[in-house]
Amino acid sequence: MSEDIITAAMVVIGDEILSGRTREGNAHHLARMLTEAGIDLREVRVVADDQPAIVEAVNALRARNTYLFTSGGIGPTHDDITADAIGVALGLPVDKDARAMEILTSHYEKSGQPFTEARQRMARVPEGAILIDNPISAAPGFIVGNVHVMAGVPAIFQAMLDQVLPTLRAGRKLASQAIFCRFGEGVIGAPLGAIQNDHPKTVIGSYPRYEDGRHWAEIVVRSADADALEAAADAVRAMLEELEVKHGE
Amino acid sequence: MSEDIITAAMVVIGDEILSGRTREGNAHHLARMLTEAGIDLREVRVVADDQPAIVEAVNALRARNTYLFTSGGIGPTHDDITADAIGVALGLPVDKDARAMEILTSHYEKSGQPFTEARQRMARVPEGAILIDNPISAAPGFIVGNVHVMAGVPAIFQAMLDQVLPTLRAGRKLASQAIFCRFGEGVIGAPLGAIQNDHPKTVIGSYPRYEDGRHWAEIVVRSADADALEAAADAVRAMLEELEVKHGE
Repeated sequence: MSEDIITAAMVVIGDEILSGRTREGNAHHLARMLTEAGIDLREVRVVADDQPAIVEAVNALRARNTYLFTSGGIGPTHDDITADAIGVALGLPVDKDARAMEILTSHYEKSGQPFTEARQRMARVPEGAILIDNPISAAPGFIVGNVHVMAGVPAIFQAMLDQVLPTLRAGRKLASQAIFCRFGEGVIGAPLGAIQNDHPKTVIGSYPRYEDGRHWAEIVVRSADADALEAAADAVRAMLEELEVKHGE
Repeated sequence: MSEDIITAAMVVIGDEILSGRTREGNAHHLARMLTEAGIDLREVRVVADDQPAIVEAVNALRARNTYLFTSGGIGPTHDDITADAIGVALGLPVDKDARAMEILTSHYEKSGQPFTEARQRMARVPEGAILIDNPISAAPGFIVGNVHVMAGVPAIFQAMLDQVLPTLRAGRKLASQAIFCRFGEGVIGAPLGAIQNDHPKTVIGSYPRYEDGRHWAEIVVRSADADALEAAADAVRAMLEELEVKHGE
């Protein structure tokens, strides 16, 4: 690993995820987008709408990763406590942001809905935060330090992430090859371990599948080095051909 | 909150989740099953196939929850390191378990497949662990202390959880009422906060939805106390009726 490895973590905030009421999908979307950008997502934590829990997770993860992303808890109700929790985590005062107030005032004027005190809470961000535009319902996300605070509603989360991604330093992109393997992991385990040992510049993963009563596996080889990737993938394919001969049909 | 609150946490282990290759679903299943059992899932962490990361998450979460569940990393390949990581976390030696070897030997005899050294790795558990039966592919999960180690493949995870659930102390079951709200969170935010203040024995959540260009919200009231639940839910419904009159059609 070298200095051009860019890492990230995510904190998902919301009682509704932990109670099983809502199935979380933003982590999966973020994982795919970051992998595409060559950024290594190291950890995801799902925590409740509880200030100490949010503060602990944010501080643990922002300290040891290049970037931290959060989703959820930036709406107008009493259980939306993310902005205040981020303020506590970073030791920054939280107040209504003039630019955010402008955006929201204009949005509610156009929509003819009242700009209630509850809605004005959505303009509160930690001091010095940069706003992230919300093209769907106006209430902005924000960036403060390396922490990117985004909405929990998937369409809004995705729109915010689309804006944030071009601002991130991209890592060395890992290329990958996925190899279908009709043998279960029990058969390939030992030879695959040997191939991993012989190809230290690659990361070889094996993902068991179980469908229609049959076990198979997908073998994925990843590397930032194209030659190393090809050599390791060739070794995997040669190993599988050998197994075909040995185990026959 | 009192001593009859039973809490849980989960550690999901797997590079394939963090790279976005696989969409995780076991956390959502566990969340629903635990809520049903009256057990409060407090936190979920997704970590890589990396021993220090697994050890840190397991030790942080097992210490402060009644139960900890893990999924993933108990197969036969070199990247399946959960059993060893749990051993390190709990300070216990890890070795092949006689009963697990028996189960696996019999399984592979019946299936006519070789019981390879890689497959024998699946019999390795920390000293003193209780096995969790795997009715699908034989390789057992295990329980050690308050840590329940289960497979990542969803069908196997679910089968293992079905066995484990009846052994857990059930908490006071929270009853809940979900109330449809056609107003966005900006309108209901302030009155809902007031209702929460007036009904401390309940937890009131509001979950914004955005569909077909319209915002609405689902309000969920939860309580272990049936009377408190009914009173708070009545207050929410009265608040919504008042808003109907005020905002008209």
